[in-house]
Order: sequence, then structure tokens, then C-alpha cells
Amino acid sequence: MNNPFFKNHGPFKLSKLLENYSEYENLLKDISKDDNFISDVKNLNEATSKDLTFFHSIKYKDLAVKTNAYACITKSDFLHLLPDACIKISCDNVLLLTAVITAKFYPDSITDNNNYNLFSVGEKFKDLISGKNTFVGNNVVIGKNTKIGNNTIIENNVQIGNNCCIGSNVILRNSFIEDNVHILDGAVIGKKGFGFIPKNSKNIRYPHVGYVHIKKNSEIGCGSTIDRGSLSVTVIGENTYIDNQVHIAHNVKIGNNCIIAGQVGIAGSTTLGNNVTIGGQAGISGHLKIGNNVQIGGGSGVIKNISDNSKVMGYPAKDFKNFIKDAR
Amino acid sequence: MNNPFFKNHGPFKLSKLLENYSEYENLLKDISKDDNFISDVKNLNEATSKDLTFFHSIKYKDLAVKTNAYACITKSDFLHLLPDACIKISCDNVLLLTAVITAKFYPDSITDNNNYNLFSVGEKFKDLISGKNTFVGNNVVIGKNTKIGNNTIIENNVQIGNNCCIGSNVILRNSFIEDNVHILDGAVIGKKGFGFIPKNSKNIRYPHVGYVHIKKNSEIGCGSTIDRGSLSVTVIGENTYIDNQVHIAHNVKIGNNCIIAGQVGIAGSTTLGNNVTIGGQAGISGHLKIGNNVQIGGGSGVIKNISDNSKVMGYPAKDFKNFIKDAR
Amino acid sequence: MNNPFFKNHGPFKLSKLLENYSEYENLLKDISKDDNFISDVKNLNEATSKDLTFFHSIKYKDLAVKTNAYACITKSDFLHLLPDACIKISCDNVLLLTAVITAKFYPDSITDNNNYNLFSVGEKFKDLISGKNTFVGNNVVIGKNTKIGNNTIIENNVQIGNNCCIGSNVILRNSFIEDNVHILDGAVIGKKGFGFIPKNSKNIRYPHVGYVHIKKNSEIGCGSTIDRGSLSVTVIGENTYIDNQVHIAHNVKIGNNCIIAGQVGIAGSTTLGNNVTIGGQAGISGHLKIGNNVQIGGGSGVIKNISDNSKVMGYPAKDFKNFIKDAR
Repeated sequence: MNNPFFKNHGPFKLSKLLENYSEYENLLKDISKDDNFISDVKNLNEATSKDLTFFHSIKYKDLAVKTNAYACITKSDFLHLLPDACIKISCDNVLLLTAVITAKFYPDSITDNNNYNLFSVGEKFKDLISGKNTFVGNNVVIGKNTKIGNNTIIENNVQIGNNCCIGSNVILRNSFIEDNVHILDGAVIGKKGFGFIPKNSKNIRYPHVGYVHIKKNSEIGCGSTIDRGSLSVTVIGENTYIDNQVHIAHNVKIGNNCIIAGQVGIAGSTTLGNNVTIGGQAGISGHLKIGNNVQIGGGSGVIKNISDNSKVMGYPAKDFKNFIKDAR
Repeated sequence: MNNPFFKNHGPFKLSKLLENYSEYENLLKDISKDDNFISDVKNLNEATSKDLTFFHSIKYKDLAVKTNAYACITKSDFLHLLPDACIKISCDNVLLLTAVITAKFYPDSITDNNNYNLFSVGEKFKDLISGKNTFVGNNVVIGKNTKIGNNTIIENNVQIGNNCCIGSNVILRNSFIEDNVHILDGAVIGKKGFGFIPKNSKNIRYPHVGYVHIKKNSEIGCGSTIDRGSLSVTVIGENTYIDNQVHIAHNVKIGNNCIIAGQVGIAGSTTLGNNVTIGGQAGISGHLKIGNNVQIGGGSGVIKNISDNSKVMGYPAKDFKNFIKDAR
Repeated sequence: MNNPFFKNHGPFKLSKLLENYSEYENLLKDISKDDNFISDVKNLNEATSKDLTFFHSIKYKDLAVKTNAYACITKSDFLHLLPDACIKISCDNVLLLTAVITAKFYPDSITDNNNYNLFSVGEKFKDLISGKNTFVGNNVVIGKNTKIGNNTIIENNVQIGNNCCIGSNVILRNSFIEDNVHILDGAVIGKKGFGFIPKNSKNIRYPHVGYVHIKKNSEIGCGSTIDRGSLSVTVIGENTYIDNQVHIAHNVKIGNNCIIAGQVGIAGSTTLGNNVTIGGQAGISGHLKIGNNVQIGGGSGVIKNISDNSKVMGYPAKDFKNFIKDAR
């Protein structure tokens, strides 16, 4: 992801990023010839040879062994898994150091401060059809024949395609919305995710420099919330329909032609394939991979990966036939 | 249901409704003498001898065998179940053909386009007590001593009785609300249901020509969503109290004196009797029948019909005593 | 709790409070010398020798035996459990009589009538940074460097500390909010709880004279609802982070440094210790006690007390190791 919305204050040299950490003095001496400028902080699989990355959970081992990153923050136990060429920054609290460094690149991303100087939508978009009391912020683009309801707030960094319907009482920020998307009343899209470093008496807020990408022909139901990614994108695929009161956490990636019924919750960084259907109130844990053509029954609690073409139900979710058999 | 809100563009003759379908040429020849005007599209049990109906699931067999409809769209397997007098329209995708024909009767019902020309509530209702920034659309009636909060949008086709309290940030459309009803902050009532014909790359939106009927003395909690019916009514009975963040899908019918706790979800076309209590976060699948005086424990997942006076809990829900026994 | 927000119309003598109930004539004769003024209605553990209390469930036996209350409304079966000094008011429907008497003390607390005469936030708070269409009611205090978003309604009886961020479309009433609290878009805080006396054809609304207390450094997610207490306070501890679409019912008390993920629901009067983490969509029944350092897995349904340092998961929730073992 090249960040379209938050200003990157880099590049920075590693010696600059780690200058206040005495434990890295030796590391910095060792790499003094290689102390190149770092462009950005990215995920293991997205980082290039100019980027810093991080590796905090063994779940991501397969991505770590082949990362192209210039440097990687990780635990001492995981150092040997990284490619030889990658500079290894050993650290007890990987996410904390990553958060601190990311905040140097993107100091504006820590909080979701509202824009207190919005414009009336009619001032900025003279020909747009819109309701009462609808306001827009900076860096907003709205396509042709798109309509916007009443009391809706489009904050900074929003691009909306053509022929979209945005309802009333909607709040949008940091979102790319393609053509023919319907966003229904009261949805909140693009706020920072529920990611932070827990710490007694005062948690440390984690930067969320990502955005939400809603592909064409999709629908988002009333009161649903879709959080933007931390370093990555939260994606809703083409022609994917999401019902009311659904919660999609940060970094989730949903494929095309999915159907997600009311009150479903999908925790952070989980990916869904294409043609996935999810019954009402089902929940999916974070960091999982749900395949293509998967059917998840209503009320299910999914706590492990699900392979293509499976049909599951229950809590914890199991093969649908076994669920029905056990229920007798 | 005689549709109070959407303009019926019929009547149409069957030969007109099916004129572009070559597969029905023989059928139309056969009925040429009986090619009467059709008034409306209705459910199996509501259709009269002037209406078209549809029969798409074996669940509705008992209603199908005694329907009074003039004609019925159904699968070839189900043709023999319909009364002799009923003209039978055989079709592979029953809901799709029904949707296309319903859209001919009600072309305005496909999308929930917001009204972009609302009036300030004070312009239309001079004596009404209301908060700031509250707007109303067309075909709105508000009774005596009813109060409306701030930032509330009452779109088209809403009738509110006497002595009601409508909160702030509420959105209402296509709803009949009787006397003494309280609707709390942020509820969204009367939007189209989550019903459509799934199709790769672009789903087909299903018409929702129904409405929501909330009977007297009821209460709807904060952030709850109640979708309007597709061809039918979504009903909340008298003196039924619904807590926060509850989702009631389209065509659901809830009886009198029910108590529904927070975050409950009820899927489409399910009916509840009177005096039903439902604990928090319980979910009920679609197309079920829950009897009178039923108690459903918190967190339950109900996936089959429940008879009168039952007490159930669990996922899938079972007799309460068995749930407690098995939990030991 | 000394009530900061609702005007107490007392004190009243017991003879005045019970004057229309013939069944208490003998009781009133017996206590005629002791017919003192009663200051307030309070919970068993908060009532002083000048207060009336009530005891409706055997769950509260331990508090009942040592209450300091001047008088107590309870069932005939429970009379013997109360201290000798406590005047005993026997009653079949304890909550109903308590509700009727509480309403005499606090006649304004029955409904949540919106304030229809709000002020633009700029009129009342000239230096405050705030968005568009934000309004405030009576008895509102806002600290330094606190920012308020767009379309937000701060009704009566709200105190907000310094350095807080209140989002857009938020609704606040009857709430104490300490410093450095973030309340995200669309949250509704301080509405009356879902407590009433069920009665056929017209339920009796229970007074909610309590408030919500959110301690410093906490965060409340988008679309979350936190109801105010009935006679008590609903408390969110310091540095407790709550995700989107969470529902916290009336009288709940949550400790410090808790982490509560999306779509969790906590029913009325339950207390949580410090350092409790709750996974997404978990539900906790009412009137329970959850200890310190408890971890509750996503999707769990907790229906009994949980002791300190436990890790539980499942529905009903059980020891985490057993959940994993049984899931195999």
C-alpha cells in the first residue's frame, strides 16, 4: 500500500529512528555503511528493500522468511527466520517499537481528531444532489450521479465513485469507494481500528495509517462499522453485500460476491475469499484465512482457518453435517 | 396488505407481464380467454383472485395448497401442489421472476433513495415540539403531543400517532407508528430489507414495497434497526419493548407484550407470538414460528420452530432444563 | 450515590409514601413513633439510616443481612433476613412498589424526554473547538482542550473533563466524563436503562435516576451504548478501552485497564474487576461478578460468576482448557 491519505514525514535513516535506544548502539555501528534512508513502514509481504517491517507472531512465519524488507523489528526468538539480507532489530515488545517508529513517519495518524472546519457540501460540490446538513472536509472527491443523504459527514481523505448512494447520518473518512456502491444510514467507515499497546494506567495508541477500500457494486448496511487498516488496507470486494450492524475490524480483506448478514463481526486482519456467505450474528476471530465459496451458518464462532468450499456452523464452528448431527 | 406507501403502477395483464419471455408463449395461448388484469403481487396467504403470488420454498406448502391467487410463480416440482384454479407459471428462479414483475408494479421501491428535499419540521408542523435540525419529507402525519428530538430525519411515508417520543438521530421512513410509542436515539426504522437475488458481479435488488407497523405502547431501543417488509409488513406488537442494538429483519412479525433484550437479531419472515421474552444477544433464524409465552435465554441460537409455553436456551437452542443439565 | 442530576423532591415520611395502600395501615400504626423523614431510595449497600431500600432477589441476601437502611421493601419470604432495626415493608411485587415510591422522589426521571431547547455549542462555550451543528443543554460543563465533533448532542447533566475527544453524531446525557477520554462517532451514553415492570397491555416504566461515570484515559467505540444506572451508577474504569457496537446495560461497573472488543454485551448490574479482557461478541448475563485479571474468549456466553485470574471461553463459558479440549 502506498499511503494515499496520511503525509509521510520520512524518509529517515535507521540511525535516526533508533537514536534514543542505547540497546541498538552496536547494531547501528555494525550497519553504519548500510545506514540507508527508509521510505516507509510496511507489512512483511508489502515491504520493499527501502522499507522497514515487523514480525511479531509466528503465524506470519511464511511471510517473514521471504520478506524483501530492508530491516525488520522482531523478537530474539524469531531472528533466525528472517532472510540474511534483512537488518534484524531485536526487541521484546515488537508492536510497541513499531508503533513508535510508525508515529515518526505519520504523526497525524495517532488520533482520529475530527475536522472542525468542514464545508457545506453545496459549497464544494455545486451540482451534487444531497440532503440537509451534509458536510465535507479536505481531500474529498465525489463522482457523477452520486447522491448523499442528510446529516452525513464526509471528513478528510474520501474518494467516492459514480452512481453511489450514501445514506443519512453516515460518517466517512480515509476511504476509497468505487462506483455503484450503496452505503446505508448510520454506517461509520474509515475510523481508526481498535489497535493499541495495552499498558497499565495509559494504553499507547497505535497508528492507523491505512484506509478502507470498498469495491464497485457493494452495499454496506445501516449502523455497520468498517475500521481502516493500521499499516494495510481494509477491503470490501466487488458486489459484496453487508447487512445492518455488522462490524469489520481493521486490515480485514473480504473478497467479491460475498453476502454477510446482520450483526456479524469479523476481527482484525482476517481475510475472506470470494463467494463467502455468512449467517446473522456469526463471528470470525482475527488473523484467520477463510477460503473461497465458504458458507458459515448463523451464530457460528469461527476460530480457525477454513478451506475452500467448506460449509461450517457452530461455536466453535465445525463441519455443517457434524453440527446438525451433534445437535440432535 | 394493501400498499399504503408505494404507488402501484398496475393493473397489468399476465400477457403483458410475461411478454418478453418466449418460454411462456404456450402458457399465454392456453389462458388467452382468462388473461385478466392482475392487481398486485402478494404473499400466498394474502393473495386474492385478482393477485399474482409466488411459491419458492417447500416450507410454505401449507399456504400454497389453499392459496386464492389468480396465478402463481413456482418451480416445476411444486406445480402439482397448487390449487387447480390457479394459473401456474413454472420457473427455475422463482424469486428472480417475482422480483422483476414486482418491480413493474412498484418501480419506485427498488432503492431507498433518500429524499433530498426535506422540510424543516417547523415548516410543516407548527405546533409540534421538536429539537434542532429535524426534517420531514412527503406524506408524513404526526399526532398530538408527540415530541421529536434533534437531528432526526423523518423521510417519506410515515404516520406517527399521539403521545409518542421520537429521540435524536432517529431515521424513519415507510412506517405506521401508533400512540404512546417511544423510539430511542439512533434507531433506523423502515429501510428496505437485506433481500436481493445474488448474482455474480452484480446482485439484483429485490423490491421492498412493504412497511413497518409499530403498535401502541411499544418501545424501540437506541441504535436498533427494523427493516420494512418486501411484499408484507414488519410488525412490532402492542406493549412490546425492544432494547438497544437489536436488529429486526424484513417481514418479521412480533406479537404483544414481548420483551427483547439488547443485541438480539431476528432474521427475515420469522413470527413471534405474544408474551415472548428473549435474552440478550440471542438470534433467531429466518422463516420460523415462535409460539406464545416462549422464553428464549440470552445468547441462544434458535434454528427451528418453538411451540407455545416453551423455555429454551443454547446454540442450537434446546429445552432449558437440558441446557442446564448439559452445561454441568 | 448522591444524585447529582435529578432533583430529589423528598424527604417524605413513610406514612406519606404509603398513604394510599390500605394493606400498610397496621404497619404505619406500629411505627407511628418512628415515622421519620426518608431522604432517598438507595441500594441495599448504599442506603443509610435515613434511606429506603429494596430487596427483591435472593442473590442480594449477603447485602440484605447487613443493610443500614431505615426501611426495606421486600417479599414476605425474605423478611426474616433483614436486620431487626430495619422497618420491613412486605410486598408481592417489590420492584413495582419501589418504582412507584422512587418516582415520588424523582418525578422527572421516568422518561428520557429530550431537551427541545438546546443551545448551539458556540453560544455557551466560546473557546471550545467543535464541529457543525453541535448542541448542548442545561447543566453542561466542558473542560479545557476538549474537542467535540459534528452533529453531536450533549443534553442535560453532562460534565466532560479536559483533553477529551468527543466524536460526531454522539449523544450524551447524565454523564460524568473524566480527563483524556475519547468517545467515538455515534456512541449513545447516559440514556435510561432497559428496566421496567412488565405488565400486560402497558408496562410500567422504572425510574432511572442514576448516571454514567467514565473514568480518565478511557475510550468508547463507535455506535456503543452505555445506559445510566437506575438507582446506582454505571461505571467505566480508568484506561478501559471499549470497541465498536458494544452494549453496556444499566448499573454495570467495569474496572480499570479492561479491554472489551467489538459487539460485546454486558447485562444489567454486573461488575467486572480490573484488567479484564473480553473477546468480540461475548455476552455476560446480569447481576454477575467477574473478578480481576479475567480473560473471556470471543463469542463466549457467561452465565455465572468468574473468579480472579480465570480464563474462560464457550457458551456457557467454561475453563479455557476444557473448551479447547471439548472442541476437538
